[in-house]
Amino acid sequence: MLDIFLRDNERIDDLEINNFKIIQNNDWFCFGMDSVLLSDFAKNIKDNSMVLDLGTGTGIISILLCAKTKLSKVIGVDIQDTVCEMAKRTINLNNLQDRFEVVCKDILDLKELYSKNTFDVIVTNPPYKMRNTGIENTNEQKLISRNEISAGLDDFIKISFDLLKDKGEFYMVHRPERLTDILYLMRKYRVEPKKIRFVFSNKKQKPKLVLIKGVKNAKSFLSIEPNLYIYDENGEYTDEILEIYNKK
Amino acid sequence: MLDIFLRDNERIDDLEINNFKIIQNNDWFCFGMDSVLLSDFAKNIKDNSMVLDLGTGTGIISILLCAKTKLSKVIGVDIQDTVCEMAKRTINLNNLQDRFEVVCKDILDLKELYSKNTFDVIVTNPPYKMRNTGIENTNEQKLISRNEISAGLDDFIKISFDLLKDKGEFYMVHRPERLTDILYLMRKYRVEPKKIRFVFSNKKQKPKLVLIKGVKNAKSFLSIEPNLYIYDENGEYTDEILEIYNKK
Repeated sequence: MLDIFLRDNERIDDLEINNFKIIQNNDWFCFGMDSVLLSDFAKNIKDNSMVLDLGTGTGIISILLCAKTKLSKVIGVDIQDTVCEMAKRTINLNNLQDRFEVVCKDILDLKELYSKNTFDVIVTNPPYKMRNTGIENTNEQKLISRNEISAGLDDFIKISFDLLKDKGEFYMVHRPERLTDILYLMRKYRVEPKKIRFVFSNKKQKPKLVLIKGVKNAKSFLSIEPNLYIYDENGEYTDEILEIYNKK
Repeated sequence: MLDIFLRDNERIDDLEINNFKIIQNNDWFCFGMDSVLLSDFAKNIKDNSMVLDLGTGTGIISILLCAKTKLSKVIGVDIQDTVCEMAKRTINLNNLQDRFEVVCKDILDLKELYSKNTFDVIVTNPPYKMRNTGIENTNEQKLISRNEISAGLDDFIKISFDLLKDKGEFYMVHRPERLTDILYLMRKYRVEPKKIRFVFSNKKQKPKLVLIKGVKNAKSFLSIEPNLYIYDENGEYTDEILEIYNKK
């Protein structure tokens, strides 16, 4: 821990898996359950996979994938300097220099760095809100993390098609109300949707999140997986959530 | 009942709502829960609606809509002569001559009969299987009812766009594994998906059916409705299913 420093407003959170930790800033976008659920949804990727994490932010999904899988290497890309610098310190904090690399770049410029058909797996927790809709966050970091200011959903999916190998896997977490956009664009760019899983707070409400797996150039046949519930009838975490959080 | 006759292998089933009945043929495609659930999903259509039922078959969805709503008129279209003839006898059996009309035509030729922007509502339980996939039914009536032999899903949606009024409503029941096809084509033809409801046998399995509401030229925002379960933990019909079947 010698070379790790924390700036004002930063904290180190224990991820409670393999002793991994993450640096976050209290004023910016902090990772939530969506990242944890996405990394769990993607945990069966093949050993030695080359993975790309589009819009990595603090690096949470990549860190969790390093903990949960035998991936060979994950490259996390983010447009925000300050967030990338923090993710780099998190890499040092966890001694993951050989497995996790952060690239500070607009995902629209990734083709300058990587040739087509490079990655086995792409994971992404993209901004949820469409351009010019809803209330925009006033804090600049939160603005980019949560809204489609720079790249839009169409860019995330088009770039994933380009950079994935044939039959490469794409994992995304998003909001259910955007499902038409998601399935339309995945079909359009031939990242064929293969699995969907809805995440509910409890059995009485509408789903809060949707987890999606696509496969480049795959045949069409979509499997709607059993629902994932966060809370049970008594307001306690369900067994599945406790397992995902390594509390069981 | 004086002018109603039954052919060999036909039977009259009581729909147990407003004393409505339907003629079905034991050897052909008989209506199932999907039609009942779709008519329930669509039951909040406005009074005096002009409704089109694409691929009406025995007429079950139209009959149930006549029972459950104050629609002004429903036109049921089917390509199969023998099935249309049977539906016409069902109309007489229920004295619905003023509200329900059967047109025996390929839906691809409907533009010869109706001008664009004619209908307030379209309901459809189209063939589930894509052309050239799966085991085809050997019986000709079942073949057309269950497989995309004549019109395909793209035709059903394109024609719905053409024949619906602006902001007209589209209700469909289909299989969850075709959800990408469905949402892709609805977006493509501007019958924007607004509501989806998955139907499960019970809480342990994947969904069996999906109910979809679209609105012509609407803005994009999809609501995933609470799940509909057919059986409870004890293998009994759920309260909601009993209500839909008027047993409660």
